[in-house]
Amino acid sequence: MSHPASDNQLDKKAQAWSALFSEPMSELVKRYTSSVFFDKRLWRADIAGSLAHAEMLAAQGIISAADLADIERGMAQIRAEIEAGSFEWKLDLEDVHLNIEARLTTLVGDAGKRLHTGRSRNDQVATDVRLWLRDEIDATAVLLADMQRALVSVAEKNVDTILPGFTHLQVAQPVSFAHHLLAYVEMFARDAERLADLRKRVNRLPLGSAALAGTSYPLDRERVARTLGFEAVCQNSLDAVSDRDFAIEYTAFASLVMIHVSRLAEEIVVWMSQNFGFINLSDRYCTGSSIMPQKRNPDVAELARGKSGRVIGHLMGLITLMKGQPLAYNKDNQEDKEPLFDTVDTVNDTLRIMAEMIGGEVAADGSRSGGLTVKKDAMERAALRGYATATDLADYLVKKGLPFRDAHEVVAHAVKDAIALGKDLAELPLETLQGYDARITADVAEALTLAGSLNARSTLGGTAPVQVRAQIARHHARLG
Amino acid sequence: MSHPASDNQLDKKAQAWSALFSEPMSELVKRYTSSVFFDKRLWRADIAGSLAHAEMLAAQGIISAADLADIERGMAQIRAEIEAGSFEWKLDLEDVHLNIEARLTTLVGDAGKRLHTGRSRNDQVATDVRLWLRDEIDATAVLLADMQRALVSVAEKNVDTILPGFTHLQVAQPVSFAHHLLAYVEMFARDAERLADLRKRVNRLPLGSAALAGTSYPLDRERVARTLGFEAVCQNSLDAVSDRDFAIEYTAFASLVMIHVSRLAEEIVVWMSQNFGFINLSDRYCTGSSIMPQKRNPDVAELARGKSGRVIGHLMGLITLMKGQPLAYNKDNQEDKEPLFDTVDTVNDTLRIMAEMIGGEVAADGSRSGGLTVKKDAMERAALRGYATATDLADYLVKKGLPFRDAHEVVAHAVKDAIALGKDLAELPLETLQGYDARITADVAEALTLAGSLNARSTLGGTAPVQVRAQIARHHARLG
Amino acid sequence: MSHPASDNQLDKKAQAWSALFSEPMSELVKRYTSSVFFDKRLWRADIAGSLAHAEMLAAQGIISAADLADIERGMAQIRAEIEAGSFEWKLDLEDVHLNIEARLTTLVGDAGKRLHTGRSRNDQVATDVRLWLRDEIDATAVLLADMQRALVSVAEKNVDTILPGFTHLQVAQPVSFAHHLLAYVEMFARDAERLADLRKRVNRLPLGSAALAGTSYPLDRERVARTLGFEAVCQNSLDAVSDRDFAIEYTAFASLVMIHVSRLAEEIVVWMSQNFGFINLSDRYCTGSSIMPQKRNPDVAELARGKSGRVIGHLMGLITLMKGQPLAYNKDNQEDKEPLFDTVDTVNDTLRIMAEMIGGEVAADGSRSGGLTVKKDAMERAALRGYATATDLADYLVKKGLPFRDAHEVVAHAVKDAIALGKDLAELPLETLQGYDARITADVAEALTLAGSLNARSTLGGTAPVQVRAQIARHHARLG
Amino acid sequence: MSHPASDNQLDKKAQAWSALFSEPMSELVKRYTSSVFFDKRLWRADIAGSLAHAEMLAAQGIISAADLADIERGMAQIRAEIEAGSFEWKLDLEDVHLNIEARLTTLVGDAGKRLHTGRSRNDQVATDVRLWLRDEIDATAVLLADMQRALVSVAEKNVDTILPGFTHLQVAQPVSFAHHLLAYVEMFARDAERLADLRKRVNRLPLGSAALAGTSYPLDRERVARTLGFEAVCQNSLDAVSDRDFAIEYTAFASLVMIHVSRLAEEIVVWMSQNFGFINLSDRYCTGSSIMPQKRNPDVAELARGKSGRVIGHLMGLITLMKGQPLAYNKDNQEDKEPLFDTVDTVNDTLRIMAEMIGGEVAADGSRSGGLTVKKDAMERAALRGYATATDLADYLVKKGLPFRDAHEVVAHAVKDAIALGKDLAELPLETLQGYDARITADVAEALTLAGSLNARSTLGGTAPVQVRAQIARHHARLG
Repeated sequence: MSHPASDNQLDKKAQAWSALFSEPMSELVKRYTSSVFFDKRLWRADIAGSLAHAEMLAAQGIISAADLADIERGMAQIRAEIEAGSFEWKLDLEDVHLNIEARLTTLVGDAGKRLHTGRSRNDQVATDVRLWLRDEIDATAVLLADMQRALVSVAEKNVDTILPGFTHLQVAQPVSFAHHLLAYVEMFARDAERLADLRKRVNRLPLGSAALAGTSYPLDRERVARTLGFEAVCQNSLDAVSDRDFAIEYTAFASLVMIHVSRLAEEIVVWMSQNFGFINLSDRYCTGSSIMPQKRNPDVAELARGKSGRVIGHLMGLITLMKGQPLAYNKDNQEDKEPLFDTVDTVNDTLRIMAEMIGGEVAADGSRSGGLTVKKDAMERAALRGYATATDLADYLVKKGLPFRDAHEVVAHAVKDAIALGKDLAELPLETLQGYDARITADVAEALTLAGSLNARSTLGGTAPVQVRAQIARHHARLG
Repeated sequence: MSHPASDNQLDKKAQAWSALFSEPMSELVKRYTSSVFFDKRLWRADIAGSLAHAEMLAAQGIISAADLADIERGMAQIRAEIEAGSFEWKLDLEDVHLNIEARLTTLVGDAGKRLHTGRSRNDQVATDVRLWLRDEIDATAVLLADMQRALVSVAEKNVDTILPGFTHLQVAQPVSFAHHLLAYVEMFARDAERLADLRKRVNRLPLGSAALAGTSYPLDRERVARTLGFEAVCQNSLDAVSDRDFAIEYTAFASLVMIHVSRLAEEIVVWMSQNFGFINLSDRYCTGSSIMPQKRNPDVAELARGKSGRVIGHLMGLITLMKGQPLAYNKDNQEDKEPLFDTVDTVNDTLRIMAEMIGGEVAADGSRSGGLTVKKDAMERAALRGYATATDLADYLVKKGLPFRDAHEVVAHAVKDAIALGKDLAELPLETLQGYDARITADVAEALTLAGSLNARSTLGGTAPVQVRAQIARHHARLG
Repeated sequence: MSHPASDNQLDKKAQAWSALFSEPMSELVKRYTSSVFFDKRLWRADIAGSLAHAEMLAAQGIISAADLADIERGMAQIRAEIEAGSFEWKLDLEDVHLNIEARLTTLVGDAGKRLHTGRSRNDQVATDVRLWLRDEIDATAVLLADMQRALVSVAEKNVDTILPGFTHLQVAQPVSFAHHLLAYVEMFARDAERLADLRKRVNRLPLGSAALAGTSYPLDRERVARTLGFEAVCQNSLDAVSDRDFAIEYTAFASLVMIHVSRLAEEIVVWMSQNFGFINLSDRYCTGSSIMPQKRNPDVAELARGKSGRVIGHLMGLITLMKGQPLAYNKDNQEDKEPLFDTVDTVNDTLRIMAEMIGGEVAADGSRSGGLTVKKDAMERAALRGYATATDLADYLVKKGLPFRDAHEVVAHAVKDAIALGKDLAELPLETLQGYDARITADVAEALTLAGSLNARSTLGGTAPVQVRAQIARHHARLG
Repeated sequence: MSHPASDNQLDKKAQAWSALFSEPMSELVKRYTSSVFFDKRLWRADIAGSLAHAEMLAAQGIISAADLADIERGMAQIRAEIEAGSFEWKLDLEDVHLNIEARLTTLVGDAGKRLHTGRSRNDQVATDVRLWLRDEIDATAVLLADMQRALVSVAEKNVDTILPGFTHLQVAQPVSFAHHLLAYVEMFARDAERLADLRKRVNRLPLGSAALAGTSYPLDRERVARTLGFEAVCQNSLDAVSDRDFAIEYTAFASLVMIHVSRLAEEIVVWMSQNFGFINLSDRYCTGSSIMPQKRNPDVAELARGKSGRVIGHLMGLITLMKGQPLAYNKDNQEDKEPLFDTVDTVNDTLRIMAEMIGGEVAADGSRSGGLTVKKDAMERAALRGYATATDLADYLVKKGLPFRDAHEVVAHAVKDAIALGKDLAELPLETLQGYDARITADVAEALTLAGSLNARSTLGGTAPVQVRAQIARHHARLG
C-alpha cells in the first residue's frame, strides 16, 4: 500500500487534485473556478510575501539557509520572467500562488516544495491582497491630494468671481466661485481622512494563520510583519483567513469618493450647458457627435458620473458576498478580487482625469495648462437673476430692529411686487422700499449689490472673500 | 473659407474629433472614454444592424443599389477579418461602431461614408445591445430549461427518498427529496416566465431614432424591424436612445436567478458537510486543499453562491447609473455594457455548471453521468431525529374530534416528556400516549411513521409521493 | 401525565409558547420578533383568506356548517371592531394572524380553534401578502395610467412648442416639447406592462401548503383559489411558503418606476431653475425658505427624485434578505413586509403627486387645473442657442450629393467660424455658406429654421408635429 | 404698498408659505413633504442646538440678554410639554424645527422670532442630526463592547472545548470553541475602531453656515461648537449644509456590523440544527410553531441575519440619494433621516439582543444567566469525523524530513485508503501507517489526537489553548 511521492505533484494537477481524487476537474469547472487570469495581477505581492515567509522560516531553523538561497534565486528568475512577459500562466494551476510555486519547484526542486511549510493559500491570498491594496491606497492618497490641489488652483484665481449660489437649483445667494470649489475640497479631504483611517486596518498581517487554525511550526509572525511593513499581526487565525472587511471598507470609501465626483461632474455638465454657460472645457476632454457637427460634449464628466454606479455596484456585490457566510474560509471569497481591482482602477483613473480636466496638466515646474475656463460674466449675469440679495434686505431690517421672522415676511412682499414689475430689488426706488418698512434708508443700496452681499457673509466658513482666502491658505499649508 | 472634405475623416480622429476641435483627445481621456475593448463583442450585431439599415436605405432610394452592394461586400470582408482574428481594433476609433465603419470606408470608399445616413451612434448602439441581448436571452432560456431537467432527473429517482423537511433549519416534517428538488424547479420555471416576458421589451427597434429626434430621411423603420426580427419599433426617438430599462430588467431577472442558485448552493454545501452527509458530489466538481490532504470541497457550489453578489452588484450599479439622468442620451449610458455582459456570462455559466453538477453530463443519447449522489440512509436517519411526526399526532387527534389548537398543546406535552426520556414519539408505548389523550388508539402507530406522515400529505402541491409523481409528469410535459 | 387542554391557549402565550417551553419570551425578544405593529395592515386580507379557508373546510366536511357560521359571525364582528378602532392589538400575540385568531376564539369558542386546521402561519402570511399586494398592484396600475394621461394632457397643448433637445445636456436638435413629454409616457407604459406581467405571478395561492409539506386534511385548494380570485395554485408546498420572488419582482418594478420619476423630476428641477426658466409650477407644489424670502422651491420634484433611493434601497434589502436561505420558511422572511409596504406607499404617493403637479388636479368633469406652466418663449429662445440646426445643414448637403461623413465635416468648419463670429448658422449670408460648399442654394434658409428642422424629422417616432400628433392619438386610444 | 408684519407668521403657514405665495400647499403635498412625524425624534437635539445658538447670539450682542432669558424659559416649557406628551405636533408646520419655533414664539413673542437670526433650517437640521447621531454612536459603542464581552464570557469557559473547524463547511482541523468565538470578537473590535474613526467626522458643527453661504451676523461659531461638545467647525458653508457623508459612513459601518452578525447568526442557526446539535438556546429566545408542536426555532438569530438586508438596503438608498446632486442643499436630503434612524435602531437592538442571547442577561453583580448552552460532546464527536488531523500527519512527516508538498500527497493516499476502510487515521495500525512512509513511528499517535492537534497550533493567533488564553486576557484588558 506504499505510494511513492511525486517529483512535483503540482504538475499533475491536470490529472487530479491529489491522490484522494479519482478524476480531474472538468474543463468547465476549471474555467469557472480558476482565478489566475485576474489574480496574476497580485504577482509582486505574492513573491514579496513568499520571500518574507522563507526568510523567517530560515531564521527560525524550519528550512535551511541553502533552501532559502534556492528560493531567493528561483524567485528572482520568476520575477524576471514575469516582467519580460515570458512566464507561462497556466489555467490548470488555478491561481497566481500555484503558478508561481510550481515554477519555483521546477527551477529549484525540493526547496520550492518546502516554501509552503506553515502556510496555506487561505492566509497567503489574504496577505497578497492586503499588500497590493496597501500600495494602491498610497496611490489613491496622492491622487486625492492632487484633486484638491487642482480645485484650489482654480479657486485661488476666482475668489472674487461671483456666481449664484443655489439651493433646490433656485438662485439663493451670491457666492464666490472659489468658495463653491472649496466645498469639494472639503469632501475630498474627508475622503483622504477616511482612507488614512482604513489603511491601518488593511495593513495587518494574516500570514501564519495557515488554513484556519494556525500551524504547528514555530513561526515568527511578527518578524514577517516587520519585513513586509505591516503595522500589526492579525490576532485570530479563523478571522484572518475569512475576513474581507478591508475590501468592503475600501469600496465604501471609494463609493463616497465617487458620490463626490458625481456631484462635481453633474455641476460641470450643467455649467457647460448653453443655458448656464458658466465654464468651458478644453477640447482634449470633449468629444463630438457622429451626426451633429456642432457638438462638443463633456464626455469625461458624464462618464465619471456614470462610473459612480460601477463602484457602488461593487460595494453592494461585496457586501452580498459576505452576508451569512459561516467561518472560516469559503470559496465564495475568491469573488472579492475582481470588484476590488475594478474599484481601485476606477477611483484612481477618475481622480486623475477629473483633476487634470479641472486644474489642467501640471508641468515639471508646477505650472498648469488646459484646465477649465471660467466665464465670469455669465456667472455674474446669472447671479443678478433671482433676487439673490433678498436675504440681505431681511438682514438689513433685522439690524434696524425688526425680528427676523417679520423681516422675512416684509421682504417677501417686496419681492412679489418686484417680480410683478419685472425689476430686481436693487432697481426699486428708495421710496418704494421705504413703503415696505420705514426703517430703510439710503445705505440699503450697498446691501443689495452682489459684492456687498458677498462681503457681508464673513463668518468662519462663509463666502466672504476674506474668509475664502483664509481657507485657501489653510489648504495650501495642509496640502503642501 | 472653403474647406475640402477629407477622404476618410474617421482616420483623422487621432488629430481631432472634427474641424470644430483644436486639439486631439489626451491619451488618458482616450483610454477613459473608449469602449472598443469591451464593446467589440457586439460586432456581429453591429454588422447585422448596418446591413439591415443599408438594405432599407437602398429600398427607399436613399442610397443606390451600387452603394448597397459595396457595403455588403465590405461587411463580408470585415466579418471574415474579425473571425480570422486579423481585424485591427483601434483605440483611437473609440468603439466597435467607428472601428467597423472606418474599415468599411477604407474598403469601399464613399458607400461606407453613406452608411451612417439617417442614423447616429446613439440609436446604433441601442440597437446592437438589444440584438445581442436577445440572442443571449434565448441561450439563457435553454439553460434554464436544462437546469430544470437536471433537477427533475434527480427527483424522479428520489420520490420515495425521505429527508427531514426543515423550517428554521429545525426538523419540521418528513418530505420527499424529490419534492424538495421540485421546489427549485418552480423557482427556475418562474425565472423562465420572467425571461419570456422581458424578451418582448428587449425585442424592439430603436434604429431610426438617430441622435435623439428622428431624422429627415424617409426611413422605413418597420422594414428594418422585420429584417432583424424585432417585434416592434420604439415609438419615441428620445426614449429610444436613452432607455436602458431592458438592461436593468434583464439584470433584475438575473439577480432572482442567482438568488435561487444561492439558495440551492447553500443547501448543497450544507448537505455535503460531514454533519449532514446527505449527498456527495463527483470529484470533477470538487477541489482539494493546498495544506489539508483530506479535503474535498464543494467549490463550485460556493462560487455559484458567491457570484450572486456580482450580479446583484451589477443590478445596483445599473440602477444607480440611470438615476436622475435628464433626456436624452448621456455618455453615462456607455457604462451599461460591462455590467450587462458580465451578468449574462455569469448567469449562463452558472446555470450550465450547476445543472451539470446536479444532473450529470448529458450524453448524446440523453443519458446522464456524474450527477450528485444521494445518501438515502443518512437522510432517513436524520428524519428520525427531531420529532418530525409530531404534527401527524396532532392531526390524528383532530380527526378524533379535538380542535386543532388543543391537539397542538397536547402534543407539545408529549414531546416534552419524550425529550426527557430520550425517545421518539413512535417509541412511546400506546398507554403512555393514551395518557395524553384517551382518544389515541393502536392506529396511531401508522401516523407516526415517516412513510405514513409522507403519504398523508396528499393535497395538491403536497409532499405525498402520489402528488410528487404528478408534478414530475407535469414538468416532463412542460419541458419536453 | 395527563394534561388538560387549555380553553384558549393563545391567551397564555405571555406565559410560554407551548407546553414545550419553560419560560416566556423576554420582553426584548417580543419587541424584536413581533410584527403586529406593521403587519396588522394586512387584516382585511387575513380575514378574507380565513373566510375562504373556512368555507372550503366546511364544503369538504372538515368542519361543520355550524363551525363555519360561528367563524363568519366572529369575523364579521372582528372586522367591525377593527374598522371602529376598538380592536385591541396585542404585542404578546406577535402578529396579525394570532391577534385575529385569538379574538375569534374568544368570540366563538371551539370553532375558532378549528379554523387553523390544515394551514400554518407560513402559508397564511404568504397568502395575506399576495392578496394585499394584488389590490395594491391594481391601484398602482390606475396611477400609472393617470400619470400617462397627465403627461399627454400637457403634450397635446404643446405639440408645436419647440425646445432644444439635449444630448449630454448640450443643445442637439430642436424637438417638440410634446415629444419630450411623450418619452416619459413610453417609460410609464413599459412600467405598466411589467406590472401586468408580474401580477400573474403574484396572483397564485400558497394556502394549503401548511407549514412546508402540505397537509393531511382533504383540502380543495382550487376552490379556495377561485373564492379569492387567484389565477392558479402554487404547485409545490416548500416553494410556496418560502418564496418571496413576488415581493422582489414588485420592488424591482417599482425601482424602474422611480428611476423614471427621478429623471422627470431632475428635468423639472432644471427647467425651473432661473437659468433655464422653461416652466413654472403652481404655488401649491412649492415651498419657501425659512431664511431667503424670495425662494419658491420645487420641493415635490426633489423629494420624488430622492425617494428613488428609498425604493432602490428596499430592493437591495429584499434581495440580500433572500440570498443563501435554505428551504423552507425561515424567520428572516418576516423582514419582507416593511420594505414592501413602504415601496408600495412610496410609488403610489409619488405617482399621484407627480401626475397632479404636471397635469393639474382633475375635476369631476375631467377638466384639469393647476398643472405646470410652459414658458414657450424661453424654450424657443434656448433652442436658438447652440447651433441646433447644424445637423439639418449636413442633411441638406447629403441631399445635394455629399456623403454624410463629408457633410458632417463641412458643417463643423461652418460652426467653428460662426462661433468665432458670434452668429447662428441661419444668420450667415448665403455667400458665406456657399464658401463651405458650392451646392448650397437659397433653399437652405428653410432647413435652418427651428420649425423647418422640426418638421423634417418625420420618421416614425420622430419629433415632427405630424408624428407627435399620431402618437398622442395612439395614447388616447390606449389609455381611454 | 405697505404690509404690516404678522404677529406670528408661522401660524399662517396653512394659508401660504409667505407673502410670495398665492395659495397654500395642497393637502397631498403637505403629507408628502412634511417630515415632522419622523423628525420630531430630534427634538432634544433641536432644543439643545437652539439654546447654544441663542446663548452665542446674546454673548455676541446680536440679541439681548432679555431675549435669551425668554428663549430659555420658553424652551424649558416646550421640553416639559414634549416629555409630558402634551405638545401638539402640527403637520402644517412641516418639521420639528418649525413646530418648536412656532410654539416658542407663541410662548415668548418677539424673542422667539429672533432665535432664527443668522441661521437657516439647512444648517439647523444638519446640526440636529449630527448631535443626535453622536449620542447614538456612543450608545452603539457601549453595545459593541457588551457584545464582545458576551462572546468572551462564553469563550473563557470553552478554551478546551474542541469543535471541528470548517473551511468550505467541510471538516478541516480541530479548533477550540473559544478560538472560534474570539474570531467574532475581532470583527466587532474592528467595528468599534471604525465607529471611533467616523465619530470624529460626525462631531463637527455645521451651524452658522445659514442657508448655504454663511451669514452677515457676527456669529462666534467656535463658541457654539464648544457649548455643544463639537470637536470642530465645518469649514465651508456650502459643504456644511449639503454634506450627508456622515450618515452614509455610519450606515456603511452598520452594514459591516450586520454582516458580522449575519455570519454569527448563520452559525447559531446551523449549530442549533439537529444534525449539528452543537448548542442550545434558552427558551426565552426561541419561538414555537402554530402547527408543529415539537418546534423550538432560533427566531432571534434568523431575524438578526435577515435584518442585515434592511441595513444594507438603507446604505444603498442613502448612496443613491446623494448621487449626482448639485450643490448646495436640495430637498432630496430630507430623505436621509428615516433610513438613518432605522439603521441606528436596528444595529443597537440587534447588538443588544444577540449579546444577551449568547452571553446571557447580566445581573447587577455582573453575573450572567441564560446564555447559550454548549454541547461539548456533540462538538467533539463531530470533530472526530472528517479526518481533522490529516494535516497533523503531513506536518509530522515534514518534521521527519519530507518536503511539505510530498507529505501532503502521502497523506492523501492514507486518507483515501482509510475512507475505504471506514476508519479514522488514528484507528489505522502503526504498520499500516508505516506502509505510507517508513519514517512514521509510534509517536505519531499523539499527533493524531484532537488535543494533540489543538495544542500543536501554538503560533500567535493560533488555536492552541495557551494562545487562546492569552487572547482572552488581552480582551479583558482592552474591554475592562
